[in-house]
Amino acid sequence: MPSFSLDPKLAADTIALTRWKLCRVLLMNDSNFPWLVLVPERTGLRDFHDLAPADLGEATAEIVRASRALELAFKPHKLNVAALGNVVRQLHIHVVARFTNDPAWPRPIWGVVPAKPYGEPELAAIAARLKAVLG
Amino acid sequence: MPSFSLDPKLAADTIALTRWKLCRVLLMNDSNFPWLVLVPERTGLRDFHDLAPADLGEATAEIVRASRALELAFKPHKLNVAALGNVVRQLHIHVVARFTNDPAWPRPIWGVVPAKPYGEPELAAIAARLKAVLG
Repeated sequence: MPSFSLDPKLAADTIALTRWKLCRVLLMNDSNFPWLVLVPERTGLRDFHDLAPADLGEATAEIVRASRALELAFKPHKLNVAALGNVVRQLHIHVVARFTNDPAWPRPIWGVVPAKPYGEPELAAIAARLKAVLG
Repeated sequence: MPSFSLDPKLAADTIALTRWKLCRVLLMNDSNFPWLVLVPERTGLRDFHDLAPADLGEATAEIVRASRALELAFKPHKLNVAALGNVVRQLHIHVVARFTNDPAWPRPIWGVVPAKPYGEPELAAIAARLKAVLG
């Protein structure tokens, strides 16, 4: 079994925040939305249901944990959770805090507005804030 | 605790296929995509992480079950799973079979092309096919 490596596009588009038991926890570098991406550190997975039975419960627990962290940090109007993977094949789960005044509301976020990368001080601030709630 | 009732928009846009332990299993009336919607029969839920700890495992198991049923029936290129709920507030989980020649590929399906309701014989055929694999 080859060792896990993060998809290059995911690596380029995100900032690593922490690692949990199953997933790497990444921040999407798009200041339009507080947007986490969970990537199970397993090789060869594409779909959510490709997770081994033993990993499914942990994946679900980590989705809940990421959702609660975003709620705590940002008090969003809604959480969006999705495993799509039509472009990047490696299984990854989006957990996104939504606001009624965000640039895509009420549509899903993907492909609506161009990504707006964080500035350097802004990125340091949001990463610190998220690390505090993600544990 | 009021008893569960399906959101009127979900009821209008879907066809009921079956009921599992936790969720109603609905078929979205849009022939652009084989598209299931799972609705936990619980009152007052909006976000995935609103599910009680005791229901999270069953929700996950039913997402996997719906995904496998779509794979078996349609041999799709990819499954998309999402809990968005920006428009319909009642918690519902989309499980969608995607093909590289579907009208939204590789974008997410929401809001890309207008829904194309099934014709009557087509609907009876797909409902029968899905009921056979959904169990």
